[in-house]
Amino acid sequence: MIKVKFLGTTASIPTRERNLPSVFVMFKGERILFDCGEGTQRQLMGQGLKFMKINKIFITHWHADHFAGILGLIQTMSLEGRKEPLYVYGPKRTSEFLEQLLTIGYFNRSFKIEITEMDDSFSIEGDGYTVTAFSVTHRIPSLGYVLEEEPRSRANMQKAKKFGLDTSPMIGKLKAGKTITFKGKTIKPEDVIEHLPGRKIVYTGDTKYDPNVIKHAKDADLLIHDSTFASNKDDIDEIGHSTAKDAATVAKKANVKLLVLTHISRRYQEGKDSTDPKILLDEAKKVFKNTILAHDFLEFEVK
Amino acid sequence: MIKVKFLGTTASIPTRERNLPSVFVMFKGERILFDCGEGTQRQLMGQGLKFMKINKIFITHWHADHFAGILGLIQTMSLEGRKEPLYVYGPKRTSEFLEQLLTIGYFNRSFKIEITEMDDSFSIEGDGYTVTAFSVTHRIPSLGYVLEEEPRSRANMQKAKKFGLDTSPMIGKLKAGKTITFKGKTIKPEDVIEHLPGRKIVYTGDTKYDPNVIKHAKDADLLIHDSTFASNKDDIDEIGHSTAKDAATVAKKANVKLLVLTHISRRYQEGKDSTDPKILLDEAKKVFKNTILAHDFLEFEVK
Repeated sequence: MIKVKFLGTTASIPTRERNLPSVFVMFKGERILFDCGEGTQRQLMGQGLKFMKINKIFITHWHADHFAGILGLIQTMSLEGRKEPLYVYGPKRTSEFLEQLLTIGYFNRSFKIEITEMDDSFSIEGDGYTVTAFSVTHRIPSLGYVLEEEPRSRANMQKAKKFGLDTSPMIGKLKAGKTITFKGKTIKPEDVIEHLPGRKIVYTGDTKYDPNVIKHAKDADLLIHDSTFASNKDDIDEIGHSTAKDAATVAKKANVKLLVLTHISRRYQEGKDSTDPKILLDEAKKVFKNTILAHDFLEFEVK
Repeated sequence: MIKVKFLGTTASIPTRERNLPSVFVMFKGERILFDCGEGTQRQLMGQGLKFMKINKIFITHWHADHFAGILGLIQTMSLEGRKEPLYVYGPKRTSEFLEQLLTIGYFNRSFKIEITEMDDSFSIEGDGYTVTAFSVTHRIPSLGYVLEEEPRSRANMQKAKKFGLDTSPMIGKLKAGKTITFKGKTIKPEDVIEHLPGRKIVYTGDTKYDPNVIKHAKDADLLIHDSTFASNKDDIDEIGHSTAKDAATVAKKANVKLLVLTHISRRYQEGKDSTDPKILLDEAKKVFKNTILAHDFLEFEVK
């Protein structure tokens, strides 16, 4: 099971409805954060997400709206007596900046923090998945991340039935790659077991339209893309963000299954026709139909 | 008019109901913060407090739950194009720590920050008030603050009437200290004008029971005091915090008009009899009757 929950969906400045960026991902019980804006610990609390068990945090870039919450979260973990190490990943200078952040004031940390600086196409191995960084185009060194599950194998139950195997625990052995003998027949794994690609989710962080995102998001199940403005914003290119149309164009070219628009400028707020965030959704859907607009606490499973 | 609004009333760790410490004070239109825990900018937003106009921030001590929100607030002020300087006050090492905080990551600040490190009995002058720091007893160097209005003068209208002055603009001249002649009579300021002490509010930040608070809070209109636990907590002395009873004892000895308990441990949450925060209020009221328990967005005027 891969569960995704949006903890913050605004751009740069929080609003009543939207906190600063953070995306929570649960991969088969392992809890991971992508970005950690101010207030993330409070967004986590009361959502039943067991924030103490978060063991990896991926920072996309060192703008405060994407990292400022890590200080309070780490302090709270310490006050709660955490002993397990926390793994933090980010672009170059992450060690320097995190060290600087965690040595302000007076604070005794109860656990180790292991920092890894990543670069384009650099991968780390998790338990049953990899996370690969890819460079994006923002005003400062910035990364996006691909979380990709290992290829999965499952029994084709129709084939299994032909061998009389449909209720047999022997299927587990076949899945593990072993040839078995059953009712006098030799059955090879490939007679019953099919391989499926792993699920793939992609988070861009802040980026303007960038072909490198298309490359890395290829055939993803879920693409979470910067969608700060609608395309009538004229200085969008300078400021290093995407329009809803940019996000949808990337989603289409990358052939993803689902696009979620996030990092929504606070100029888009419910209640006014001219600035309703649905403008962004409508704009994206003209290019790529299977699009959702993120809101805080939006949650779904990637199947 | 002095308006006080609590933006965060928890101790150390936020809860669903209580954000991290910050107290907003408006003194005749001037906006001041005491402490600035994580999430303060979002607490300010939508409360109609015009956070862009905050011009002074007093930090009591450098534990992250009291300062971490200053980074996001300053960043937002910059994104909004602030030009006016911001004045930040705190205990020793405030310059070093704030500089360290504001140089993490990539950030262009649009305005100047003027830092003043304060010590016991050190005062700064505001427009119509002073703020005096006083040392408190916590685990690290920590201050409380007294905001004290200048003595006020007002016309005794009964006396003014005797001179036929009750509707006369000449009263303004008397208030300004000038002797006037009215209907052939010489009237001195002291014939009509009375002097009142200025209003006084005191914020302790984090402290255990400390006689220095009593000294500085003498006759205050409002004392906002650390009240982390009830007095059945046995390690309270070591951890540098006060019980509700401690706070009430200080209030009584200092002869204040009103005590507000804040910095409430998250062990006290509504809904359970054994841990209802009213326990704290009940404990304090046995010692000092005029006590209120703070909650987020509690607001009142000091008259």
